[in-house]
Amino acid sequence: MKVNGQPYRTIWLEGKLVKLIYQPQIPHKFEIRTLQSYQETAHAIQEMWVRGAPAIGAAGAFGMVQAVLAASPHNYQSFVADAAEVLKNTRPTAQNLFFEIDQVLACIKASNSWEEACQNAVAQANQSADESVKACEKIGEFGAELLKDGDSILTHCNAGWLACVDWGTALAPIYRAARDGKKNFVYVDETRPRGQGTRLTAWELGQEEIDHAIIADNAAGYFLSGNNIQIVFVGADRIAANGDVANKIGTFSKALVASECKVPFYVAAPLSTIDFNCNSGSEIPIEERSQEEVLNTWGLSEQGEFISVRTAPAKSAAKNPAFDVTPAKFVSGIITEKGIFHPSELHQLK
Amino acid sequence: MKVNGQPYRTIWLEGKLVKLIYQPQIPHKFEIRTLQSYQETAHAIQEMWVRGAPAIGAAGAFGMVQAVLAASPHNYQSFVADAAEVLKNTRPTAQNLFFEIDQVLACIKASNSWEEACQNAVAQANQSADESVKACEKIGEFGAELLKDGDSILTHCNAGWLACVDWGTALAPIYRAARDGKKNFVYVDETRPRGQGTRLTAWELGQEEIDHAIIADNAAGYFLSGNNIQIVFVGADRIAANGDVANKIGTFSKALVASECKVPFYVAAPLSTIDFNCNSGSEIPIEERSQEEVLNTWGLSEQGEFISVRTAPAKSAAKNPAFDVTPAKFVSGIITEKGIFHPSELHQLK
Repeated sequence: MKVNGQPYRTIWLEGKLVKLIYQPQIPHKFEIRTLQSYQETAHAIQEMWVRGAPAIGAAGAFGMVQAVLAASPHNYQSFVADAAEVLKNTRPTAQNLFFEIDQVLACIKASNSWEEACQNAVAQANQSADESVKACEKIGEFGAELLKDGDSILTHCNAGWLACVDWGTALAPIYRAARDGKKNFVYVDETRPRGQGTRLTAWELGQEEIDHAIIADNAAGYFLSGNNIQIVFVGADRIAANGDVANKIGTFSKALVASECKVPFYVAAPLSTIDFNCNSGSEIPIEERSQEEVLNTWGLSEQGEFISVRTAPAKSAAKNPAFDVTPAKFVSGIITEKGIFHPSELHQLK
Repeated sequence: MKVNGQPYRTIWLEGKLVKLIYQPQIPHKFEIRTLQSYQETAHAIQEMWVRGAPAIGAAGAFGMVQAVLAASPHNYQSFVADAAEVLKNTRPTAQNLFFEIDQVLACIKASNSWEEACQNAVAQANQSADESVKACEKIGEFGAELLKDGDSILTHCNAGWLACVDWGTALAPIYRAARDGKKNFVYVDETRPRGQGTRLTAWELGQEEIDHAIIADNAAGYFLSGNNIQIVFVGADRIAANGDVANKIGTFSKALVASECKVPFYVAAPLSTIDFNCNSGSEIPIEERSQEEVLNTWGLSEQGEFISVRTAPAKSAAKNPAFDVTPAKFVSGIITEKGIFHPSELHQLK
């Protein structure tokens, strides 16, 4: 996708270096940052310099490449096993992170030497990233068939190209439809507490010249019940075998309101998001993040400085679960790179 | 209720002056402001120095007193009729504003002289404010019967004493229960875009030493579905004759989630909130406020300055409906000063 008219991926590998679009300052500043080691990459995942299930999957894979390249040829196996643990311990909910790390780890284990392990890891991680881009592009194609010219879409959080290597998941159908000449409008949930909708989705859509308006998370029900929205697209951090969907906090409420208002609710995610070892949503661990995210908001001051302001009373506390689980019964379909499936059909993909 | 241990009302009349707690700087600064004329009072309502249906009802009544006191004895009737229009045009949704203004206006019209009109208006406005306090206290008594020791409550926006003359509506049962020795816990929705939950409700509860935590609006579904919350209390800006409830944007989604999770959902409001001329929620006008409320957030900087930060991209727009309508079928009961009624029973109160 484009930034200021130039094509970019969200994250990529250059030799030993991982480069990424530094997301905490978007939409106010566009900056590429370089991560020198797998530890720096782990830190970047934890601090959400990069976020979104497919993108942190790629970050995990690239981090594993950095680990094997930095390892001593004589004990690289234990070194990369440790690195895998460090990288996996950055975020608990997204399935893709574990999936992609394990793919590179298996590749390294199957190699006969450190040199071969390095070559295979680089090839695997880059291939995974390329496949991830292709999968998102396919998600876009399948999802775009659901969109008519003139439709308005609600989306929550950022499941756009900044959450992936490119194209996005929930936003890919919108980008595809735009390239096919359809004019659509996107209602962008602010997505408190971190504001990924306001900061990232609105910025992405603006760069791609897609018409949109930001709404408070509270306003989604108003627009869904008022016949303003024809379809909902969200991403997923993990999908259980029964079709329950873990995604950004607030997704559950939107799905429920969409169901009540008879607006189709679609989850867009690559197959690597499905955790067949997880029978239902109740088994998915939900990350609790710092209460400071709720008590404060970050933005650009009139003087152009990036600052955090405290909105809450000095003595009040907060609770901050980062994800919730949407029961499969509220999901109209799951848009994958292999087509669109009803949640009850997922077992066919195992 | 108390501020720093001292008792206050939210708004009161002193001679020709209306005094109020200036709410835009709460929770960071506590300040009483004085309004010299009905025009200043109208401005204060419009700019939300005072907000909440019962409190703006009182502000409207006090504004009418200011108008009649400032009128010429010879043409006061047309002067107060004009003032009533100005005061009514400040906010479109809350029923209490129109109700209280009309009460004072009727009193003035029924008077035989300007002197008598002044006396009657002052008496009527003060009596209304006192009755409003009593009504809220009764709402607290009826509502507290729904609360068991140890229950957790979800509330949205601010329907506390800052939204009333005293006691509050949705929070009155919690204050009553606390005085009766019950220990309860309140989940406080942030209530974007204006953050009345974070700024006002959390501050009120803190001043009254009620345990609470602020949550992102998106997190209400997570806690409702996780058996963390036993009951929901919200206020109302207008209630239609069929029991549909107009309240702060986001109320509809919370009601729907509460219904799905089988958590009782109660609306607390004085009878003056019921508009028997309005057959259903679809007839209630919904105020659209400035998109700047969504694109920015206001708070306290680390240097202790009150500033607004821009969270959204420079070029993105927003949509900002201030209220939504919760269909009567999702309302377990309406807590009034006359008792608790099912929405289908409202016609008995006409």
